[in-house]
Amino acid sequence: MNFASDNTAPVTPAILDALAEASRGYARGYGNDDWTEAAGRRFCEIFERDVAAFLVPTGTAANALALAQVSPPWGAVLCHAESHVLTDECGAPEFFGNGLKLVGLPGAAGKITADSLHEVLAGYGGHSPHQVIPSALSITQATEAGTIYRTDEIAALAQIAQQRSLAVHMDGARFANALVRLNATPAEMTWRSGVDVLSLGATKGGALAAEAVIFFNPAAAASFGERRKRGGHLLSKHRFIAAQFLAYLADDRWLDLARHANAMADKLAAALTAIGLQPVWPVEANLVFVVVPRALDAKLRAAGASYYVRNSDSLDTGHDNVLIRLVTSFATVEEDVERFVDLCARFEARPKMRPKTRPRVAPI
Amino acid sequence: MNFASDNTAPVTPAILDALAEASRGYARGYGNDDWTEAAGRRFCEIFERDVAAFLVPTGTAANALALAQVSPPWGAVLCHAESHVLTDECGAPEFFGNGLKLVGLPGAAGKITADSLHEVLAGYGGHSPHQVIPSALSITQATEAGTIYRTDEIAALAQIAQQRSLAVHMDGARFANALVRLNATPAEMTWRSGVDVLSLGATKGGALAAEAVIFFNPAAAASFGERRKRGGHLLSKHRFIAAQFLAYLADDRWLDLARHANAMADKLAAALTAIGLQPVWPVEANLVFVVVPRALDAKLRAAGASYYVRNSDSLDTGHDNVLIRLVTSFATVEEDVERFVDLCARFEARPKMRPKTRPRVAPI
Amino acid sequence: MNFASDNTAPVTPAILDALAEASRGYARGYGNDDWTEAAGRRFCEIFERDVAAFLVPTGTAANALALAQVSPPWGAVLCHAESHVLTDECGAPEFFGNGLKLVGLPGAAGKITADSLHEVLAGYGGHSPHQVIPSALSITQATEAGTIYRTDEIAALAQIAQQRSLAVHMDGARFANALVRLNATPAEMTWRSGVDVLSLGATKGGALAAEAVIFFNPAAAASFGERRKRGGHLLSKHRFIAAQFLAYLADDRWLDLARHANAMADKLAAALTAIGLQPVWPVEANLVFVVVPRALDAKLRAAGASYYVRNSDSLDTGHDNVLIRLVTSFATVEEDVERFVDLCARFEARPKMRPKTRPRVAPI
Amino acid sequence: MNFASDNTAPVTPAILDALAEASRGYARGYGNDDWTEAAGRRFCEIFERDVAAFLVPTGTAANALALAQVSPPWGAVLCHAESHVLTDECGAPEFFGNGLKLVGLPGAAGKITADSLHEVLAGYGGHSPHQVIPSALSITQATEAGTIYRTDEIAALAQIAQQRSLAVHMDGARFANALVRLNATPAEMTWRSGVDVLSLGATKGGALAAEAVIFFNPAAAASFGERRKRGGHLLSKHRFIAAQFLAYLADDRWLDLARHANAMADKLAAALTAIGLQPVWPVEANLVFVVVPRALDAKLRAAGASYYVRNSDSLDTGHDNVLIRLVTSFATVEEDVERFVDLCARFEARPKMRPKTRPRVAPI
Repeated sequence: MNFASDNTAPVTPAILDALAEASRGYARGYGNDDWTEAAGRRFCEIFERDVAAFLVPTGTAANALALAQVSPPWGAVLCHAESHVLTDECGAPEFFGNGLKLVGLPGAAGKITADSLHEVLAGYGGHSPHQVIPSALSITQATEAGTIYRTDEIAALAQIAQQRSLAVHMDGARFANALVRLNATPAEMTWRSGVDVLSLGATKGGALAAEAVIFFNPAAAASFGERRKRGGHLLSKHRFIAAQFLAYLADDRWLDLARHANAMADKLAAALTAIGLQPVWPVEANLVFVVVPRALDAKLRAAGASYYVRNSDSLDTGHDNVLIRLVTSFATVEEDVERFVDLCARFEARPKMRPKTRPRVAPI
Repeated sequence: MNFASDNTAPVTPAILDALAEASRGYARGYGNDDWTEAAGRRFCEIFERDVAAFLVPTGTAANALALAQVSPPWGAVLCHAESHVLTDECGAPEFFGNGLKLVGLPGAAGKITADSLHEVLAGYGGHSPHQVIPSALSITQATEAGTIYRTDEIAALAQIAQQRSLAVHMDGARFANALVRLNATPAEMTWRSGVDVLSLGATKGGALAAEAVIFFNPAAAASFGERRKRGGHLLSKHRFIAAQFLAYLADDRWLDLARHANAMADKLAAALTAIGLQPVWPVEANLVFVVVPRALDAKLRAAGASYYVRNSDSLDTGHDNVLIRLVTSFATVEEDVERFVDLCARFEARPKMRPKTRPRVAPI
Repeated sequence: MNFASDNTAPVTPAILDALAEASRGYARGYGNDDWTEAAGRRFCEIFERDVAAFLVPTGTAANALALAQVSPPWGAVLCHAESHVLTDECGAPEFFGNGLKLVGLPGAAGKITADSLHEVLAGYGGHSPHQVIPSALSITQATEAGTIYRTDEIAALAQIAQQRSLAVHMDGARFANALVRLNATPAEMTWRSGVDVLSLGATKGGALAAEAVIFFNPAAAASFGERRKRGGHLLSKHRFIAAQFLAYLADDRWLDLARHANAMADKLAAALTAIGLQPVWPVEANLVFVVVPRALDAKLRAAGASYYVRNSDSLDTGHDNVLIRLVTSFATVEEDVERFVDLCARFEARPKMRPKTRPRVAPI
Repeated sequence: MNFASDNTAPVTPAILDALAEASRGYARGYGNDDWTEAAGRRFCEIFERDVAAFLVPTGTAANALALAQVSPPWGAVLCHAESHVLTDECGAPEFFGNGLKLVGLPGAAGKITADSLHEVLAGYGGHSPHQVIPSALSITQATEAGTIYRTDEIAALAQIAQQRSLAVHMDGARFANALVRLNATPAEMTWRSGVDVLSLGATKGGALAAEAVIFFNPAAAASFGERRKRGGHLLSKHRFIAAQFLAYLADDRWLDLARHANAMADKLAAALTAIGLQPVWPVEANLVFVVVPRALDAKLRAAGASYYVRNSDSLDTGHDNVLIRLVTSFATVEEDVERFVDLCARFEARPKMRPKTRPRVAPI
């Protein structure tokens, strides 16, 4: 019953096989190999346009390098107040961006709204050179709350951003989970909606360590090769990161893996709802957030369940309860979901206090 | 006949197996897993003391993070003028070190001498705060020229460094190649000779992407976890980098792999010498540098040989010749060596102009 | 009627005289002169202990260098959400601090409360190395809202900070204004209350360009000379910045200048209150914030009054009104205050909508 | 007999007067004042074109900010091996440039030659992204050796730089000293010869603390205001730095002051030559370098002479001698020059060993 994170999962067998397959004979280092070239072509196919793609080993690197590319040091990157770039990367964007500023925006269920974006932007301007200059908007798809921006929501935010000359970055650590839920194409969910640069994650989806920074306007990637190298993120045996992506993206594997993860989250959400433990936010990707009594939490852990307790500024659980985050992945099996729900079902008490805030997110 | 680099080699099968083996079931992310713990213990065994070890995916990351840890931004890191950190990392040490300064020292065959270290250090001091302050010495073992510092040479340099309160860093991208040649223990070649922090490479030796930063005084590693994370170098599925090291270091595998690479270099050097193409520097690790006529270079490439041409400030090849670098690895096969030498042998011309400078390095 | 800022004022004559006086003959550069030595002694006298003092030309430099000295790049500096370091220095602390993070705390009338400090700190810890680590508390004295921390308030905040090993920084751009109001000694308002490092401003108080970074524990200033030099903030003809401080601090001049500025603010506040325009925050230093109808604002400007409109998150002025900031200085003359108030008095309308939030700050 | 530096001189009276004059009444802060506007116009006049000028308090700031503006972090700034930016600014260019690399070029008498520039540039290219990319050439006018680039020499270097898309920066801490010697116009010595950005110093020439960064193509100065602010180099009472420049540049005062300094250096050089102490490098600005016996050095100091001993890689003084640097300034009086020479004349011994290297610099 491991629901701790999608990165506690192993590597999907097809990717392991691809690594072994790639490990035959010699190949030029640093990305001058056939696998890398093929991966580059594959990204262009998937996104239906010429893109510039750079592979890196971690999502933090992908995000921080991408943001440093699109923001000057005196720029402000607007992101959700509970976004990974702001709260969980130990200041990597500030480091790579030579001291750029991340500005956290409020928003229910992990999503930035057009209103809050407008409001924050209204506070900038006319005070040069004392104030930093909004330079980029970073949104997470799927969000850290497990919700998903609809393509029209992305487009609306991007339009506001563009009016102020902000670049639009998408943290797609769980890109595939969002994609299969929206039933949109990769192009629709990104550049056709105004996204300029994407951190496309494969690690959480089943790879070993493979993330990509995708620039939809290749000219915007000028000198990114130097930036990556200088950040220590250019792998010498680069074919092995490209091979992961090739296997991940082949034959819709990435979509199938994501569909499974989402399906497991749906099953978990439905079953928990049925026993009175309704998720606090819509379950749109592979994350389920639910408030449980502390006593149930203890019982679940004693039974071997693994997950994290989370805090959210937008939610008051009350003292006797905790907000837990359950993450499913390509590796989640139905038995674990069932066993987990069964443990909850047998524990009769339910949180007396309703979570203070109910998110206002329309269903898909 | 691929002698381009040790990173054009594939992954050694035992490490691929270890990855597959590690990919069973769940494991906590970010280094809180059993593999990482075991790797930590293994480093302590190998170095015969309590060490703090941090795994990262690239050698550039290992070097840059290590140097940033031991040098303030106003520090000068003294290194060889042709060292990888100075010439091939696109300024990564300066980036991670917030603008520290790398100072290149001269030295035959890639090695810094005590004399040149003394001389450079004499130029610093008494001019605070206008001048940067020497903060660290970085030596490469084996060097970029394929030579090796003897343990007493390391100790002599380290002693000079310590007298000026410089930390001593070793770039051990080819640590094992040096180790098996010197017949020294890892402890003798590092902390017992005064090394404070080591970048220990496994990638060139047979891993997929696995490097370690080893602090011999664990207290000197304070906050290094934050530094690594913020650099984007903490892998989420960390067990897979630890598993590479475990397989690499198990059963003297790393030493066996390095011995093979060295033996192939020796064979190459001996055979080339026998036909009048004596390496310009002592062949002490897995690199062979030899001056060949341009016409031979063309012929070798036409026959499918792969290697890089290098320039060295300490060597004048004359206009008609080029200095080529031949790198062997765990994957090099005797047939390729023989075929390469045979091609050379059948080409009768030899460089007429002797290389201007002969290195003065005593044999082991 | 210039109430735009205390930096629109000229230089007080005694300081101009001191510059002319210092400009006789030769003096060693870069701070190795008699004026600098004397200034150093004067700081020790004033603060009643051995301090390490570094002079710099701007307040932004003083703040950014001080914060970079006490916080690692992965540190979080906690400060008020409307503090100058966060909103008006274009990211200087992040730049000098190699990407450190400023975290804005709420608080009425520009002051951080013990409660909000506790609450923010509770959100950090136990999540290493993903989260930045609170490293410093920065408070502004007097605050940007013109209010003043009492010494016991400073001590209470500092105690909380110390329990979490945070350094305590005070932005004292208007230090003297606070000092004379509190009737405290410089020692009481700083190190005796737990302050570790102070940005002591003289520019706003009457100097040309003179700020000091004062470390109350000189050992904490190690290498600060290099940090300042490397930031370009070590003046070559350093005697002239020292001479400014000597004149400013001589014969209680700094206190007299500040008393005058405060007295003018008091007069302004009292007169405005008398005509129904009560300041929104207690007037404790040389700043008066008052909400006026837009029509009055226009009339005042037409009559030649100069000041800035400000926004505050803690205050809703309503659409027809604006919050204006009136700053007095050593140079403010009573006639200007009277004329300004007279203009207001003759304008009969008063803001209909009360400011949404009333600050809860006890009177001195 | 103070020949220590031109920054040991005081402030020229006209500039002190200008400060007092500027200190009347109120003025908007941060450069939005009449003095700043007038200074901007004056720079355009002097350089005979539309320029973007930014005032800062130190030469280190001017250089570091300028270089950071024209070089990316992965850039290499080529400069003389003994240039101030490389050896005396404690890494400020690296800090402001987020870890850019300074590459020191050899060259007799402080000057880079076209040959050495060609040679260094030949070592870059074709190795992306491993190698940094030459981004700027920085030359010092007058040089640290007291020599001067002729306009055709500047043009030749600039042409080479432009062919490789390098920006050309001139460190003009002693710009006026060079200008009056060359009998060139400011335009000829800068943009007409290919210079893109100039650090124009006034401090050494007679100001209190006033330096300017001049962009000859204003579009190249985009966001430089933010860069300066964020570096803490935007003075709040900005009129006082502008007033210094206005007085310095008025009525050819800057040229007169520089002519005096140069004349004193000439007198010193001629008199020393007459007694057998010929300067080691051509005396073209206000610096005289001469090798003296250690015993004479001691005698001079005992008599109250003040100057610095320098080392130069291009010069071997022998053990019994030292290379001393004598700097004259606008404030140098003939009596001091005569007294100094007289002391030398009465000391009969001359350096027995000729300096190893004679610079090859053609006379003007």
